[in-house]
Formats: sequence, C-alpha cells, structure tokens
Amino acid sequence: MAEAGREGRPGSGELAGLDAWWRAANYLAAGQIFLLDNPLLREPLAAEHIKPRLLGHWGTVPGLTLTYAHLNRVIRRTSANVLLVVGPGHGAAALNAAAWLEGTYSECHPDVALDEEGMRLLFRQFSFPGGVPSHASPHLPGSIHEGGELGYALAHATGAALDKPGLVVACVIGDGEAETGPLAASWQAPVFLNPDEDGAVLPILHLNGYKIANPTVLSRLPRDELRSLVRGFGWEPIEVEGTDPLAVHEAYAAALDECFALMARGRRPVVLLRTPKGWTGPEWRDGEPVEGNWRSHQVPLPAARHDARQLLQLERWLRSYRPEELFDRRGAPAAVVAEQNPDAGLRMSANPLAHGLVQRELRLPSVPAHAVDVPTPGVRGAESTRVLGRYLRDAMRLNAGRRNLLLFSPDEHASNRLDAVFEVTGRRWRLPTHPGDDHLRENGRVFEVLSEHLCQGWLEGYLLTGGHGVFSTYEAFAHLVDSMVAQHAKWLHTAAAMPWRRAVPSLNYLITSHVWRQDHNGASHQDPGFIDHILSKRAEVARVYLPPDANCLLHVTDHCLRSKGLVNVIVAGKQWEPQYLDADAARAHCERGFGLWEWASTDQDGATDVVLACAGDVPTQETLAAVEVLLGLVPDLRIRVVNVVDLTRLPAPTRHPHGVSDRDYTSVFTADVPVIFAFHGYPWLIHELTYNRPNHDHVHVRGFSENGGTTTPFDMCVQNSIDRFHLALAALERIPRVAGRLGTLRQRLLDHLDRHHDYIRRTGEDLPEVRNWTWGS
Amino acid sequence: MAEAGREGRPGSGELAGLDAWWRAANYLAAGQIFLLDNPLLREPLAAEHIKPRLLGHWGTVPGLTLTYAHLNRVIRRTSANVLLVVGPGHGAAALNAAAWLEGTYSECHPDVALDEEGMRLLFRQFSFPGGVPSHASPHLPGSIHEGGELGYALAHATGAALDKPGLVVACVIGDGEAETGPLAASWQAPVFLNPDEDGAVLPILHLNGYKIANPTVLSRLPRDELRSLVRGFGWEPIEVEGTDPLAVHEAYAAALDECFALMARGRRPVVLLRTPKGWTGPEWRDGEPVEGNWRSHQVPLPAARHDARQLLQLERWLRSYRPEELFDRRGAPAAVVAEQNPDAGLRMSANPLAHGLVQRELRLPSVPAHAVDVPTPGVRGAESTRVLGRYLRDAMRLNAGRRNLLLFSPDEHASNRLDAVFEVTGRRWRLPTHPGDDHLRENGRVFEVLSEHLCQGWLEGYLLTGGHGVFSTYEAFAHLVDSMVAQHAKWLHTAAAMPWRRAVPSLNYLITSHVWRQDHNGASHQDPGFIDHILSKRAEVARVYLPPDANCLLHVTDHCLRSKGLVNVIVAGKQWEPQYLDADAARAHCERGFGLWEWASTDQDGATDVVLACAGDVPTQETLAAVEVLLGLVPDLRIRVVNVVDLTRLPAPTRHPHGVSDRDYTSVFTADVPVIFAFHGYPWLIHELTYNRPNHDHVHVRGFSENGGTTTPFDMCVQNSIDRFHLALAALERIPRVAGRLGTLRQRLLDHLDRHHDYIRRTGEDLPEVRNWTWGS
Repeated sequence: MAEAGREGRPGSGELAGLDAWWRAANYLAAGQIFLLDNPLLREPLAAEHIKPRLLGHWGTVPGLTLTYAHLNRVIRRTSANVLLVVGPGHGAAALNAAAWLEGTYSECHPDVALDEEGMRLLFRQFSFPGGVPSHASPHLPGSIHEGGELGYALAHATGAALDKPGLVVACVIGDGEAETGPLAASWQAPVFLNPDEDGAVLPILHLNGYKIANPTVLSRLPRDELRSLVRGFGWEPIEVEGTDPLAVHEAYAAALDECFALMARGRRPVVLLRTPKGWTGPEWRDGEPVEGNWRSHQVPLPAARHDARQLLQLERWLRSYRPEELFDRRGAPAAVVAEQNPDAGLRMSANPLAHGLVQRELRLPSVPAHAVDVPTPGVRGAESTRVLGRYLRDAMRLNAGRRNLLLFSPDEHASNRLDAVFEVTGRRWRLPTHPGDDHLRENGRVFEVLSEHLCQGWLEGYLLTGGHGVFSTYEAFAHLVDSMVAQHAKWLHTAAAMPWRRAVPSLNYLITSHVWRQDHNGASHQDPGFIDHILSKRAEVARVYLPPDANCLLHVTDHCLRSKGLVNVIVAGKQWEPQYLDADAARAHCERGFGLWEWASTDQDGATDVVLACAGDVPTQETLAAVEVLLGLVPDLRIRVVNVVDLTRLPAPTRHPHGVSDRDYTSVFTADVPVIFAFHGYPWLIHELTYNRPNHDHVHVRGFSENGGTTTPFDMCVQNSIDRFHLALAALERIPRVAGRLGTLRQRLLDHLDRHHDYIRRTGEDLPEVRNWTWGS
Repeated sequence: MAEAGREGRPGSGELAGLDAWWRAANYLAAGQIFLLDNPLLREPLAAEHIKPRLLGHWGTVPGLTLTYAHLNRVIRRTSANVLLVVGPGHGAAALNAAAWLEGTYSECHPDVALDEEGMRLLFRQFSFPGGVPSHASPHLPGSIHEGGELGYALAHATGAALDKPGLVVACVIGDGEAETGPLAASWQAPVFLNPDEDGAVLPILHLNGYKIANPTVLSRLPRDELRSLVRGFGWEPIEVEGTDPLAVHEAYAAALDECFALMARGRRPVVLLRTPKGWTGPEWRDGEPVEGNWRSHQVPLPAARHDARQLLQLERWLRSYRPEELFDRRGAPAAVVAEQNPDAGLRMSANPLAHGLVQRELRLPSVPAHAVDVPTPGVRGAESTRVLGRYLRDAMRLNAGRRNLLLFSPDEHASNRLDAVFEVTGRRWRLPTHPGDDHLRENGRVFEVLSEHLCQGWLEGYLLTGGHGVFSTYEAFAHLVDSMVAQHAKWLHTAAAMPWRRAVPSLNYLITSHVWRQDHNGASHQDPGFIDHILSKRAEVARVYLPPDANCLLHVTDHCLRSKGLVNVIVAGKQWEPQYLDADAARAHCERGFGLWEWASTDQDGATDVVLACAGDVPTQETLAAVEVLLGLVPDLRIRVVNVVDLTRLPAPTRHPHGVSDRDYTSVFTADVPVIFAFHGYPWLIHELTYNRPNHDHVHVRGFSENGGTTTPFDMCVQNSIDRFHLALAALERIPRVAGRLGTLRQRLLDHLDRHHDYIRRTGEDLPEVRNWTWGS
C-alpha cells in the first residue's frame, strides 16, 4: 500500500473538499444515465423524469471520477501539466461530469451552461438521439481518446508524451482492456520513452474486478503475480485499495504524491487501484448484488422508469450524494466543489494539447531539390523510397530543433530504403546497446518496434497532440491496424465538427513492401486490401495515393505531410524501377491526380482504339511495356495511356471531395472506348469507384486476384494476368479493327508467356528482357 | 540455469548423436537457402551451384533445429506426444530439414525423396518459383502455423492444446514476435488452460537477440525484469544459455527434462533460450560481424553467387558441418543421424493432429425441433440469437463426451443472448472465484477473454487440430482480426492442395452485435466492413450469410457447423424482431440462398413495377415495411420482394462456386425492372458482387453509408436512407406509371419522416408504430 508522500498526509479539510467534488461528479454521472428532467431533484423523482432508454456504463464511473479528483489535487498543489487518457471509454458520463464541473464543458458547448438548465441538458443529451455517446468522443473537452474499441489507451498516452518534456500523461487502464493484445504490448513503453525528451506516462490500472459478465483476469491474478507482471518492463507498482471512501482518499492522495515524486526522478510508477465496480451505487437489485459486481457494469437500475421500487432506489442513491450541498441555488457547483478545480490554465479538460492547439509547424524541404533527373521517361531507374528517404532525412534535419516529426515502423526503415534518415537521427532505444548495433540512440526520432499496434497507437497519440509523423509498414500486415485506423478516421470526422478543436496533422501511411513485390515472401505477405478498407471510411477524411515513380512519391508525400485531419495512404515501390516524370511533370500530374500520358500514347492524331489505364508502380510498368508489345504487333494502334495517382479522383464529386465531373472523367477515359485498367489492388475497387461513370461497361480491370506465392516479380504479374502480355491480349480482344488477326496475335502473346514459363522453371529468374525492361528500349 | 533433470545428465554418446542430427539439419537448412545443385558438395562449390535469387532467413534456423533435436531427445526417452508450433515462421528451412531427416517430408512429397536427388529438390524448391515459401506453410508436414505474419504462435499453441490431455504443444516464440500485441496477450493462457482437460503448452522463448535490423526488446531487458514478466501469469522460467554447442546441449537437455517433469505436475515452465542469432554460420562478412548479430537475420552471404570470397566462405561454412559424416553414399541420413529420430508414430513432423487426421465428429441437434413457430410471416417476434442459443446448448449437450466443440467470445455470450449454453456448461476460468460470479467453471467450454486476437487464435489452433467452434463478436470490432482471418483463409486454401491433410472444421463467426443495432453505442461501434474483407479472400473458402430471422439463422448455423475448410461469417440480430419463415420455408430459402418471397410480393398477376431486395435482418424488416408503405400510397403497385441469405449467390459462378447463372439471377431480379436493394453493409459490396449482371444499371443499393451515432434503432436506418420511407421513395421515383403523382407521394413520405424527426427529438424514442411494427398489422 502507498505510504504518505513527501508532502505529508492530506488534511481532513482537503479530503472533505475532494470528497465533495467526487460526490458531485458521481451525481452528475448518474444523472446523465437516468434523468431527462428534475436534475437537482427539486421534486420527488417520478417516472417521467427518467429516460425511456437507459444507456451508459455506471460501473467504471466512480473510479474515473475518483482518479480525476485526485489528479486535480496534485495539479492544484504542484501546477503539474497533466493530460488524461481514459481507457474505459464507456465511462464518458464521468468525464462529461468532470469537464462540466471544471467549466470547460460549458465553454466548449455553451448551451450546456453551468446552471440548472445546463445540467438538465447535460443529462438529457447523454446517450440520447442527437446527443453524445456513452463513451468519450471528440465532443468531450480534454480527450484525445475515443475508447469505444478497447486496448489503445496506454499506446495513445505514450504517443502523447513523446517530445513533451514536463508533461504527465495519466492513463486510466480498465482491467478488462488490459486483457487485449495492444494493451499488453503497450507495457513496453519504458523501453522507448526518454525522460529527458518526453513527458512521463502514469498508468493507473483500475482493478474494479469485472467486465460485462465476467471477472477480469488481472483482478483475480494472485497479487504477487500481478506485481511481477508490471515490474516486467521496469514499472514500479504503487497500490491503492479500499471500499471506505475516506480511507481510499487518504491512500490515493499519498500514492499519487509518491508517483509524481518518482516520475520527477525519471522512474516509472504504475498505480494498481482496487475499488469496487459501481462503487457508491445501488448495492442490491432484486436480491442480487450490484455494487462490487458485474451487474453494475452498465445501468444498475434498468427498470427505473417502470418499476416503482427501482425508481425509489434511484432516488435514494442520487440523494445519497447530497446534491443540495454540492450545487448552489442556480445549479452551479457550490464553492466547496468549485474550489477543487485547478486554475483555469491547468484544467485537464482544457489541456490545449488535447484540442490540437499546440502544433509546431513542420518545415519541409524542397521537392525539386530532391527529385531524380528524368531526361527521358522510363529509361533511367531508381529506388523510389530511397529518394524519399533523402527527403525525409532533410525534413528531419530542418525540424531538428522543433521536435515535431517522428517516424514509426515495425523494424523496416532500412529494408524500406529510408535509411538516409539515420544520417541525422537514430532509432529510439533505451535499453543497453551492444557493439554492432545499428543507429540506436536514446533520443532517436525513429521508432521501431515489432508491433504494428504500437506503431499506430503511438503515432495516433503523437498526431492528436500536434505532432507529425509517418508509419511505414508491409501492405499485407497493415490489416493489423484496420480497426484502429477506422476508429481514428471516425474521430477525425467527428472532431472536425468541434470548432474548439484544431485539425491535427494527418495520419500518413507509407506502404512500400507491397503486394507485387512480396514474390519472395509468398502468399502470406500478399494482400492489397488495406486501401479498400481506408476507402470505406468517410470521404472527408480518406485519401489513397499510388505514385508511379520517385518524383510523384516525393510530391505526394510532401502534400500529405502538409495536410491536416486526414488519413493518407501512399503505396509506392522500394525496388529499382523505371522513372517516368521529371519534377515539373510529376508536380502537374500529382496535382491533377490522374491524367493522360501523352508521351506514352499514340492516339493524338486520331480516334482511340483502346485506353490503357494504370494505378500503382508495377501496373504502370506493365502497362507501358504492354504499349510496346502492342505496337510491336500492330504498329498503327491508337493507344491512350492514363495513369491514376489519386484514386479518389475516380468517383463522382458527390461521393468524394476529390472526385471529378463526368465531363473531366470522360475527357480522359473517353465515352465509349474500351479501357484496360491495370490496378495495384483488388480489381473490384476500381469497379466500385467507377460503377456509375459513363463508359463503365467498357472498363476491364486487372488487379490482384489472390493468386501468388513464392515466385519472381514478373511471375506475380503473370499469375494475376496483369503482366504486359495479358494486358496486351485483353486490349486486342476488345479492338474491333484487329478482330480478323486476333488468332495470330493471341498466339504470339501466348508464345511470350510460354517462353516466360519455360525460362522461370529452368532458371528461377525472370526473362532478361523483362528484368531489364525500360521504356523505348 | 537449468539443473540436470531427474533422468540425469545426458551421456556423451547421446550428445554426440544429438549434435550430429543438429549439424545435419543446419546443413540442410543452409543448403536450401543457397544451393541449386551439388547438394552433398561432392565437387568444389561453384557459382553455378548457387541460386540466382538468395532468399530465406538463416538467423533463426540454428535455434529451431537445436530445439527440434532436443524435443526429439525427450520424445525418444519418454514417448511424449508433442506437437510443435514455430513462431519464427521464416525459419521454414529448419523445419523442412527436420521433416526430411525424419522421413516425413518424403512421405508427403514423394519426389523429395530421402536421397541425393531428393536433397537436391529439397534445396532447389525452397523460395524458388513454383516451390515452397521461406516460412512454414501448409506444405510443411507437422505444421499448423504459417508464421508469415508474426504474433500468433502462442495463441495457436494454446488452442491446439484444448481438449487434448496428455499432449504437449511446444511453442517456439521469436523474441521479435514477442513484441507484438497478440503474443503479449497470449501469456494469459494459464488462466484458461486446464491441466486435467487440456494438453500442456511449453513456450520456448528464443532470445537470439535481433530482428531485421534491431535488437529485440526482451533480449535486452534486464534479466530479472524478463523473469518477472514471464512469472506474471504463473509461468516458471527455465533458462538455457550459451555459445558452445556441447555445453548448450547439456544445459538444454537438462532444462527440457525439468520442463517435462514440471508439466507432468500441472506446472507451467517456459524456456528462456539464449543462443546466438545465425549460430554456426559465417562469423564475419566484409569486416562486419554476422553470427550473433542482426546481419545474420536473412541471407548471411548474399553475394555468394557473384563474389568469390563469399562463395569460399559458404563452402567452408557448409563443410564445417562435416556432411560426409551425416549422410550416406546415397544421400540419405547416416545412421548416427537417423538414430536420433523418434519412432515413426511419434515424429513431430507426422503428428496426425497437425494434418487434421484426428477429428471427433460433431453431432448436431435437430433444426426443426428448435425452430420458432411462425404461423403467419412477420407477426410474431423472437430474439433470433436466443433461439440459436438453445440449439447451441443442445449441441453442447450432444457432444459433451466428445470434447469437440468450444465457443469463444470477448465476454459477449450472455449479452448476445446465447446464455442457454450456460445450462450445460460454463465459462472457462482457472483463477479464484467469488460469490456472485456467473457460471465460471474450471472445465467450462465457453471461452471469454477480452481479446479478439486470443479468441481468434485459440479457435484457429483448436480447429486446425480437429475441433469445432464458433466465435461471436461485435461486427465493428471483428476488424481486429482482419489480418488473422486473412492468414487463416490463405492457409485453408493452400492446405486443400495437400492430399495428406484432411479438411478441418470451418471457422465460424457469429456477428450479432451488428452495425444497425449499435444505436446506443454510437459511431465507434458502427462498421459493417468485415464481410467486405472476408469476400476479398479466395472464393473457394469465403462464405457470408445474412439470415433474416431465427429459423434461417438455425439453418445457416447448422450448415456452417457441418462444413469443413471454410471461413463462414453469419450476421444476425439479437434484438426482438419479426419472424418470417417457418422451419420448412426457412430450410428451402437457405438452401436456395436467395429468392422471391411470394407472400410479401404483389406482382404475381402481372408485370413487376419494382423489385425490393434485401439482405440482413434490419434491411429485411424495413423492406417489408416499405412494401406496406408503398401499398398504402399506391394500392395496385406490383412489387416483388427478394431476400438474400447467402451473399455469394449474387456473383457469377465463374467468380464464386455458390454463384448462380445469369438466367437464375434474372428469374429473380428481372431483366429490366428497377431494383431497390436494402443491404446490411456498405452498398458498394452489392455493386461489386453484381456489377456484370444483367439489369445492374437498374440496381440501386441502400446500405450503411457511414452515418450514425448515438440514436434510436429506426433513426439509424433513417440516417442511412435505408428506412421504409426512404426505400419507398426510392422505389416510387423509379416507377414510370406513378411519375405523374410523384410530387404528392413524395410529400406524404417526407411528412412521415418529419413526424419521426419531431417525435424522436421530443421523446428520445422511435414512433410507436415503427417500434411495434409487424407485417400486415
């Protein structure tokens, strides 16, 4: 158990005030769950005061309000800068209450004023149609964490602490949430957090014992095993336990004093808080225990509107907090309560970090200065991400003093050829180093941990508190964070409606170990569906870019790093590949998002026989090669080549803000010419984006069709019929004027494919002319 | 460090044999990475013997082969039944080698015989086009674990141990993999594994120190912290460390003896194995350390084909294993090696559990006996999953003695109304219980842990070793396992091509807390995209069902539980809702997968004005209500109602084995009548499935369009325009013969919507006539 901290045991007056604030918060939380009206119980509680649908989670509330009250006590005494992340997200009633008591709620939502009518609205809106959800969401001042999906609290808290020395990020972790994988991995934070460069993270593991219908694992684990577990990564357990409020207040106050003292010395305390689930709520319901039991998880008196006994229980419960002491005549917090609030500038509910108000502007290097020289399209080659690595290196350098840019990856920056960044920074690492270690630094700005969940969660926490960053990862394994990015996208969309929140830097993914170059890793690494998932999110926040070469990659990345409030996915190759556009052409192409490549087209002087469209680096290469194959077979073919960088140009403007008009679409894709579309991902995504466009019936998409395995790069294309020969065949089959020669032409293409099959079977390599292909060669 | 076990220290003869087997396995693994030919080094190594593309991961190999050799030693001495799960999946070269040495590889793949030519093929096929991948995959005898995506080894091992008393599942965990969330959560296994009912899991944490380019967290953690960490859930660390092979052999042998002795007493040892990465491989390359360093992670001599020095290094390295002692003249393992293999029936590479050969047939209760009575469609109501709960209860009862059926969920069986199962079994729980706990049992067959990753991983391990199960979870949070299910689907598809593997029971999801009834939980819980993800997987293994009522849910679940080798997703409601089909009608409808509902249609006697199609319980209800709304406005409308249970009927048979012909499709959806399709999920999925069907231009899909929040059930529909009034309006707008009256009709529908908006704003509830709607009322 905690001993009294250096500052001595809190006095009884202080405890009484603290308890009053706690009671007020609990009252307000219970009121939100139950009351439509009569918020101050000025009249006896009646059925019509009770909401028709009772929603919300009471069980977690008293622990959250208790923690809030005690953090406030420390803040008042020490003026600490504290950001609060609350994992048990369905406890929003507790946090709404705290923000209202601090006055912040009314500042952000002026209709929910600090008076009786405001209290009535606070209650009514909670889990009410058109109101606010029962879990923390962007409506809640001071919050950066949704908490609808569990598991990310400690990762978000860790990310929020990065680059913010002096900040304390207090993080309440539910003992249910603690069973999740992402949370379990998050305990590794001390290996990466640097007490000199970053804020401190204070996990508060709230062991209230129960989930929906079950006990929690950690609350029932033998106590020595739990202590042993959290000591694993260097955390120091500080325990608080009790069922008597005043005793718990004393112990919790002492424990937090001790924690802040330890953190000031760079140590890593973690609070193990054991208080009853649904504490201070109804003890029993129909002969069954409720307080201290899983039955208090959600609404402890679910029939309060219809069952007179439960209604009476509810009234007794609410009055047990003695609201008449806690609120004044107008319904505002009484002095005894209001005095517990920290100074306005220190309120957790008003921490400007949580509202995106603290952002250090990112300086970005010149794109043209980093562009590769492309005298002729498609002849010289480059590794696109290596070019980007130099740009990111210089971005790191330009912002060195600003501490506003971090990179995250599951140990793939070097293999993704972004290693130029190690010329100016290192990999963050706080454990011992050995000779031969590569660029490990105590203050490195590159985070590599073999957990996509941690990369994503840390980056989200960092972005939501104003930082900038890039997460590079394998395309197939980006699915690991499907659910996390969906939550983040929803957060961004909702947050945009809160005028007191400023848009935060975008979440940028660099997908460079992509499906077409997993030939060596085989089927398990082949899945391009992450972009489908991203585009299922609201159009206001979702962007997908497929730059075909290095200069386009530079432009797209520059654009994404400058953007705010978005989720940007960039898919680009890391292998040596032909480069098509010089810096100017790349800028123009990326700004337009898609367009005709005249230099590769042969339809300038007449009608178009076929449109060869492409999106993605490998499909672009195969499309251009297909042009040459086709012209080799039918020299007078009028081919139009279209490249798509920004996938969201394809749908109509009513579906996506980047969408172009039918007229602009048709000017590129034509109104009636067959389109052979070579696509990086699953073919249906193109159909989905274009299904109601003119000419859609003539769009034939080739993409990844779940064929593949361990093979060569070109054979991956062949297996999915997206190689130059299959594309050429698909085109010829749809051009009426070659119909008479189709049999011969087809045979010549099949001969190529046979040669490929023979060669690869014999040598294990691709045909030399394919391996060494450049445009016009 | 481990002390000698009870059986005494291994003798020097035993160690010499063990070391010979280890050297042989290492030789074969290195040969796979490098050699095209000259497998026994009968001639000096030359460039043309080296593969043109060097792929594979050497670093993890020596630890895996060492572990294999030592497990074999225990198996030989104790006849233990051991299943091996290997997390560092890219170490397939090690496991291919072991299976070949045991003779199993040649039994399963007869061309890769136990002789020199077989060895040459073993080498050549590895990471070679048309060959086998560098990570364990279904081609590997004895494996149930792909290991391409990291993090699931311990969860798979735990699932494999369930219901298999006497089995030991040895599980090698890479220290990189151990950084992932799913692996971190997996250490909770002892809370759920029952030593009397289940096999034992023996984790072997291989701390070889490095990932791709970084040290690993756990290998650098202070040793007392690592021990503390693994003691957390009751594991007992047993440490083995060294760089001298013979000393390590002694220590490892003693450690495993101790582990098996501890497991026999129901205790939970975990081996902490510290050996150098790339041990016994090249020490240096171009002046940089390789052995014991991250540079040995993949191919330690990447230029061996082109660089004479590396070629020489490779030859020296390979000869250092003294192949001439290890293989006989024909190329088969020499006696000193072969003697180390366990008896044929005990080989880990031939464990019948891994090949699906041990399956206890599932007995299923009668569907009609559990069907709800439906005298008239749409009048009586039921909670569909509660009906299913009784069926699952009886399935549990029928199979009680067979121990072949388990249920998994993140604590939602009761809230999903499946609680009838608790009449016959309980929730698995091995920690202390308290008064008020609900159905916790040491031998419960229901697994509830707040980790979707663990539910999925345990179920996969259980299925892959012949068990049956169902995973019920929230629809939005099913995305948490997107990546896991993609890997499982790929495994199933590839495994189906191995004749020595038997198809295992299907992976069944029950998605019952779905998008349309997350009105109380708000936006964070609203995402129907899991089925999009599932349908992106190969058609051979992916199935999605949307039963509209309880009897259809019974039929579909029964069908899924009987199926093998598939991933089945069932989406069904848990709320009280109208029931449409009696047992016979439900059977016929589910067998057909989609069809016309004549009882709800009014187009029997003439041409059809509009088709109202629906898939999903809520869309079905709104569609039927829309029929009534429409007939109220235009009594002589000829409406056809079509319901879709099996989504994979919609695409053509060339795209999915369940797909129907254009003729059958048109007979239901018509050739030219407008179709208003009310769909459970994102609308584009229907477009994607039907884009090349006749009449697609007239298909108008309404589905979830990312609108929603905290509101009422009906308002969720309104916000996404899938409610009865919007559906009716969409229909009327497309029926030429009402065009003249459209303005009036539209206004009447908008009046309904206005009434809805007013009522909900005032009361927080849905209109009573909507709330209480039944068909024909």
